[in-house]
Amino acid sequence: MRSEIDNLMAARQLDALMVITEERYDAVVDYLTNGARITGGVVLKRRGEAPVLAVGGMETEEAKASGLEVRDYSAFGYHEVMKAHKDDPVARKVAWWQALLAGVGVEGGRVGIYGAGDLNVYLEVFRAFDREVTAYTLVGEAENTLFQAAMETKDADEMARIRGVAARTNEVIRATWDYIAGHRADGEAVVDADGQPLTIGAVKRFVRRELIERGLEDTGMIFAQGRDAGYPHSRGEDEQPLRQGQSIVFDLFPRELGGGYHHDMTRTWCIGHAPEAVQTAYEQVMEAFDRAVEATKPGMQGGDVQQIVLDYFEGLGHPTSRSEPGTQAGYVHSLGHGVGLHIHEPPRMSHVRSDELRKGSVVTIEPGLYYPERGFGIRVEDMVAIREDGSIETLTDFPKDLVLPLRG
Amino acid sequence: MRSEIDNLMAARQLDALMVITEERYDAVVDYLTNGARITGGVVLKRRGEAPVLAVGGMETEEAKASGLEVRDYSAFGYHEVMKAHKDDPVARKVAWWQALLAGVGVEGGRVGIYGAGDLNVYLEVFRAFDREVTAYTLVGEAENTLFQAAMETKDADEMARIRGVAARTNEVIRATWDYIAGHRADGEAVVDADGQPLTIGAVKRFVRRELIERGLEDTGMIFAQGRDAGYPHSRGEDEQPLRQGQSIVFDLFPRELGGGYHHDMTRTWCIGHAPEAVQTAYEQVMEAFDRAVEATKPGMQGGDVQQIVLDYFEGLGHPTSRSEPGTQAGYVHSLGHGVGLHIHEPPRMSHVRSDELRKGSVVTIEPGLYYPERGFGIRVEDMVAIREDGSIETLTDFPKDLVLPLRG
Repeated sequence: MRSEIDNLMAARQLDALMVITEERYDAVVDYLTNGARITGGVVLKRRGEAPVLAVGGMETEEAKASGLEVRDYSAFGYHEVMKAHKDDPVARKVAWWQALLAGVGVEGGRVGIYGAGDLNVYLEVFRAFDREVTAYTLVGEAENTLFQAAMETKDADEMARIRGVAARTNEVIRATWDYIAGHRADGEAVVDADGQPLTIGAVKRFVRRELIERGLEDTGMIFAQGRDAGYPHSRGEDEQPLRQGQSIVFDLFPRELGGGYHHDMTRTWCIGHAPEAVQTAYEQVMEAFDRAVEATKPGMQGGDVQQIVLDYFEGLGHPTSRSEPGTQAGYVHSLGHGVGLHIHEPPRMSHVRSDELRKGSVVTIEPGLYYPERGFGIRVEDMVAIREDGSIETLTDFPKDLVLPLRG
Repeated sequence: MRSEIDNLMAARQLDALMVITEERYDAVVDYLTNGARITGGVVLKRRGEAPVLAVGGMETEEAKASGLEVRDYSAFGYHEVMKAHKDDPVARKVAWWQALLAGVGVEGGRVGIYGAGDLNVYLEVFRAFDREVTAYTLVGEAENTLFQAAMETKDADEMARIRGVAARTNEVIRATWDYIAGHRADGEAVVDADGQPLTIGAVKRFVRRELIERGLEDTGMIFAQGRDAGYPHSRGEDEQPLRQGQSIVFDLFPRELGGGYHHDMTRTWCIGHAPEAVQTAYEQVMEAFDRAVEATKPGMQGGDVQQIVLDYFEGLGHPTSRSEPGTQAGYVHSLGHGVGLHIHEPPRMSHVRSDELRKGSVVTIEPGLYYPERGFGIRVEDMVAIREDGSIETLTDFPKDLVLPLRG
């Protein structure tokens, strides 16, 4: 949680944080600036003190929405630094970072650097800073970074937003089910009142409209049918018409408009009727799902919940990414992941990389079975929160029926 | 242009490129993978050879949309590398990058690294790579990077997409004008048929819907009124009702859905009537605009076009960011910028940092005058392309009337 940041800094012996803000959306920037829509700036924080947001003159008004103390670049000698290093962009950035740190009273020490940027650009800036600056040491972490650790549990304000996104996403799933159900069968085809085939592209357009109406934005939904559903990350082909009796994996993971908290949920639907192989695999996925939810508790390793699902699927004879690393058939991915300002964040729930589930964690539970060569894939995913009393709060509130009957 | 990449590599003595793909959208990744919706992977390119896209098993189907040669991570020994460095994420990444480069036949030399990532994570990976790997030298550029240089001019395929985005954006601006005009006056208020005030939030919702219907997405439009319009990057307050006689800066810069080419345009509107101060400043901005378009030619420095506008505004007595660096009144920003897969890219058109305008450049021309303390701001922006014959193609096709009359 945000309230842990100073402790997390102390554990890492960090004297200060410096967070680079660019036009690109970054979850850490959002986390610290409370969603202020700035397109440039630097958040500076001395350990034990409140963060300061330094921005250029054009951003000052928008920056106030952060609730942070806002200071204009001019107060840090911006124009002098730019002028002094006019022809050397690397020296300019190195001098600017020093001016910013000194400007908030950090005269030296260990500085954690955060934010996102072009690797090509920052590679040279980091090298120059390491080479030329002795007062400060930039500090990174290749895994379990300070902000990943902070974000791993959600506070009450975050939970309120997460519940709001969940409720709106559930409405959209329901509207989508009803939209499809309003069509009619023409043989195995699915057509509208005029006999025109319903395509995946039309469904996705419908979903995006429904999201926008509720202040949410799509970040790349999956609506994949038949063989495509057999590849977990295939998005589905817009021009493909829906057909009865095919497994459809619908994985929706929208976020608050412009960047913010996510929801993440998946349903697998067969329109009209389900082939026996799909029905059987679906029941197995649901059993895996129930076992996983049952095992999801504070203090449990995410990877251990995954092991339960791996044991179950392997016992039924399915290949898994544990029994056959790299397999594209069977159960081929992690059980779930944390969700927040990132769609994927710790705690991790993989047998290879795992984090402990904690009170305040918000995670997905999403077992699946994939058989692209047999023309189907199945995944069922709810997002859940672990309450303070250790119980599970299901945030995805939509039935898990496989067959979607047409009533058009 | 993409066709220049090998020459740009040669000029930088690069033996290979390595482009890191993550969940975060990155323009360089999009540029090389033709918009394939992969959420992880690495593009590898030896100079003079076609790029190869390495991805995990879950991404292989989606990766095919790139048109590149796709290879599964397994072919590079992924699982062996992960196992060998299970407990050391930095060593794992360093070994993996070496395996990828070796896997496409790059046994050593200078490697340009691109893509976007968490600075906190890559700082440590870069340090370890520099320290431990002798065969390869990672190469960065703090400015005018290889891909910035390539993207600075657009090829025919890119221009076709850019024109498509422009046409759809122009439709949305027109629809927005008509939507507002359909309201009626109630004193200085702007109300709907039921007498309900029209708010900025309602206008923005309308715009987002119109964009989505056309396969475009908002990336943070500005619709700012009165004093807010006086701050170039203020987005506008959703709950604020529109009022007659206030300057409204409407800056719309959508992109293709899910990431892609942008359009960028701004209009300033006064509903019903314009105060004299706004009218006068508007005419000055239009004169500056016309002078700037007149001066926009291949071979011209972007910064020199800016100087023309600075001279003109200063001659009228307005402060500028040249005469008073850091000013928040007068003309406070650059004249324009290149637009493509990034909303802001070279060529730069600032008196401080400038690039040459070239045939195939696509830039904005956007002079403005800002007086927040006097309660107004004005900006007028078209996006233009410089054709092969040196002439200007205006991509923003919407009238530049200041006064938007109500007809509801």
